[in-house]
Amino acid sequence: MTPAGHVHLIGAGPGDPDLLTLRALRLLQEAQVVVYDRLVDPRIVAMAPEGARMIPVGKSPKCHPVPQDRINRILLDEARAGHVVARLKGGDPMIFGRGSEEAAFLMAHGVRVDYAPGITAAQGASSATGVPLTHRGLATGVQYVTGHRQAGQVLDLDWKRLADPDTTLVVYMGVANIGQIAIGLMTENLPATTPVLAISRATTPGERRLLSRLDRIAADARAEALEAPTLFIIGKVVSLYAQQPVTDLLEQAVAHG
Amino acid sequence: MTPAGHVHLIGAGPGDPDLLTLRALRLLQEAQVVVYDRLVDPRIVAMAPEGARMIPVGKSPKCHPVPQDRINRILLDEARAGHVVARLKGGDPMIFGRGSEEAAFLMAHGVRVDYAPGITAAQGASSATGVPLTHRGLATGVQYVTGHRQAGQVLDLDWKRLADPDTTLVVYMGVANIGQIAIGLMTENLPATTPVLAISRATTPGERRLLSRLDRIAADARAEALEAPTLFIIGKVVSLYAQQPVTDLLEQAVAHG
Repeated sequence: MTPAGHVHLIGAGPGDPDLLTLRALRLLQEAQVVVYDRLVDPRIVAMAPEGARMIPVGKSPKCHPVPQDRINRILLDEARAGHVVARLKGGDPMIFGRGSEEAAFLMAHGVRVDYAPGITAAQGASSATGVPLTHRGLATGVQYVTGHRQAGQVLDLDWKRLADPDTTLVVYMGVANIGQIAIGLMTENLPATTPVLAISRATTPGERRLLSRLDRIAADARAEALEAPTLFIIGKVVSLYAQQPVTDLLEQAVAHG
Repeated sequence: MTPAGHVHLIGAGPGDPDLLTLRALRLLQEAQVVVYDRLVDPRIVAMAPEGARMIPVGKSPKCHPVPQDRINRILLDEARAGHVVARLKGGDPMIFGRGSEEAAFLMAHGVRVDYAPGITAAQGASSATGVPLTHRGLATGVQYVTGHRQAGQVLDLDWKRLADPDTTLVVYMGVANIGQIAIGLMTENLPATTPVLAISRATTPGERRLLSRLDRIAADARAEALEAPTLFIIGKVVSLYAQQPVTDLLEQAVAHG
């Protein structure tokens, strides 16, 4: 038997390196080879050990430099060559992002896979803005969906099921389709006044926020030229965002003595 | 103006201290006072700085040693006394657990609140078991609900909305009501054969797992005497759990040379 390498499937979190888990950092720093996505913050990529071989396999919308099959193959070949491979993905590898497809492929070929979960974008946006994902009296639960589909595929979301005023809806990768999403939800009677908070690049220096409501979010997002990756938090919990400026003012008051 | 303390609202994650974020650890280690819940792993409580004043405010089911109002008051008084207070909660403070209620109370009284998100129990269970929360072809999204209600309140979940075969459903705090939950879902046509994975105390030394299906989970959970905190992952993604033993066997093969 050849010496077995293995793959650490690591969640890099939403962007801020401070939101890495201790485990994620440790596994990354054990790596001999780092295979990383475009959405992983460059500050985190820079935390790879000196001397590790760095393999970018970034995908951007409508542009797939490295197809998924090829990524799978790179991971398998590097592991079979006996290397410790860090597969670094934005957010949590078990929530969107196809981490479990890569894991299933590797395990089917006898390669050991370890996981380090990551703070997913919804949590990053929540902690950055102070908007909770659940809150007594406002949201009894939360759901995450993706608003992105492969080119040529329809956005087949179940609007009736998603249009629940008592659940927070978080839409990942939804900036291109937010108009269709808002219409779908309103058609199923989610109130047009439901508050929506859009957050681009949460927890990074380029973070942008846009507070709107369901019937205006598409126009507002276009006017503000929000770009991917943008996350939408839809639901009554967003009403708590108004509190935040109070804190900001207090912080300024403290900072300026 | 008296010197202003502030409160760090910290997610302690699912249990394993290795799953703390760097930020959570740093904020905890700045604390002069630590106010912590019963569900925070004792290994994490032990990471508080030497000399910090430790205030347990743990709640266990049907036993509320410190009522919520009193917890709010403790946090406010400690912050107003000028202390740096770490409010340490299991999981992520923005997902269940009433973290945002405490934050809203504190901000309304002019106290500054910082957040450190945490790996929520669903993510801990996912990374521990290898069962993803979304997976192409099995689940296009994921939702988190709580199966717990205050004594005397009915479990008013919207079964029709939750019974979606294409969404992973994660039930937090559901062990007492899993029978009612399973029946509610099956009544709305979620197949009786839908796989269910119950995980108690995921990522801790006391972790237990139970693989079942929707029509048997209540009886199986009773037979196994599963106790809170137990998380239920319900949906087709659980079918990927069967792969895991393969890895375990491989690990043993490697370990035994």
